[in-house]
Amino acid sequence: MNTQVAQITAGRGPAAHEIRDQIVAAATEHFSHYGYEKTTVSDLAKAIGFSKAYVYKFFESKQAIGEMICGNCLAKIEGEIQQAVEGVDQPAEKLRRMFKASVEASQRLFFQDRKLYEIAESAAAERWQPVLAYENRLRSSLQEILQQGRDCGDFERKTPLDEATNAVYLVLRPYLNPLMLQYSLEYIEQAPALLSSLVLRSLSP
Amino acid sequence: MNTQVAQITAGRGPAAHEIRDQIVAAATEHFSHYGYEKTTVSDLAKAIGFSKAYVYKFFESKQAIGEMICGNCLAKIEGEIQQAVEGVDQPAEKLRRMFKASVEASQRLFFQDRKLYEIAESAAAERWQPVLAYENRLRSSLQEILQQGRDCGDFERKTPLDEATNAVYLVLRPYLNPLMLQYSLEYIEQAPALLSSLVLRSLSP
Repeated sequence: MNTQVAQITAGRGPAAHEIRDQIVAAATEHFSHYGYEKTTVSDLAKAIGFSKAYVYKFFESKQAIGEMICGNCLAKIEGEIQQAVEGVDQPAEKLRRMFKASVEASQRLFFQDRKLYEIAESAAAERWQPVLAYENRLRSSLQEILQQGRDCGDFERKTPLDEATNAVYLVLRPYLNPLMLQYSLEYIEQAPALLSSLVLRSLSP
Repeated sequence: MNTQVAQITAGRGPAAHEIRDQIVAAATEHFSHYGYEKTTVSDLAKAIGFSKAYVYKFFESKQAIGEMICGNCLAKIEGEIQQAVEGVDQPAEKLRRMFKASVEASQRLFFQDRKLYEIAESAAAERWQPVLAYENRLRSSLQEILQQGRDCGDFERKTPLDEATNAVYLVLRPYLNPLMLQYSLEYIEQAPALLSSLVLRSLSP
């Protein structure tokens, strides 16, 4: 029996979430070399020095590991967006920065590693749970900025908030979804400024 | 020697553009059954009853045939957009109809036939000439509508016309490009109205 399994069984040693993190870190490394699609859980377990049964103790499938990696990537993108709007008071400026940061971070993190991009692709195509949650959080952030702008009189209030939010989200969506983003790389320099300016004109009272 | 080749050689019979159309019609039929990617010019020539040399007399490559098929498809989409805005005077209403018609026609014509979609895919991915020309014409149509709206005082004039046009084009682009459109099918009902309304709010003086 592997030392770590023995420790877990005995109730000592690293907590389950630490082992999960360890497996995810090793799997990220492995997938980035050999690709996500072609790797099986057996390959992965072997390569990272765990038994297949041990990996299955913590993850029910390869997709479950992929979902953690995908979630980590999306969390990094969200962190960068967060950082970009932090301390900004003006809703218009917040929106501009949100467009810029989300497009730039998506491009960098989805495409930094061609092999890991396979995970982003599967996640987006199969609508994995972390993707749905991420999209909902981004939509909420947009709605919050719109509400703020309405409250302080910077943005118009005639359009129903839901409608305005959905429309702005649709404008940004092609740059958040990696499957679509790959076909917009030639516009990536100009798109955030052009689109956020258009959106801000649409929000003027 | 094939009768048609004999006729061409003798300077009688159908004009070259008629034979090209004939080859394109037969090729469209063939590709829609067997797929564009897997078919070679030899397969195609054999299936439509011409010699390979005869096909090469009229088309320098399989892509050249694909480009004609692609061009025909784009012409149909443009025809539908044309029809939708015909006789409409108000620039705002023109823009709404252009969004609606282009999204609906693209969806119908790109996806009507899974095997022919391979041509649209190659065309969009490899930026075939008919695609570039189509995109430029659509961008010009948008610019014309914007100019019209400026002239009659319906649209704002502060934003440089080029900038406004490019931004509106970027909003519409994910629905014109088949590679991107396939990932927006769940939004296809709501997108034209939501996005054209947002764009029109952005254009208000």
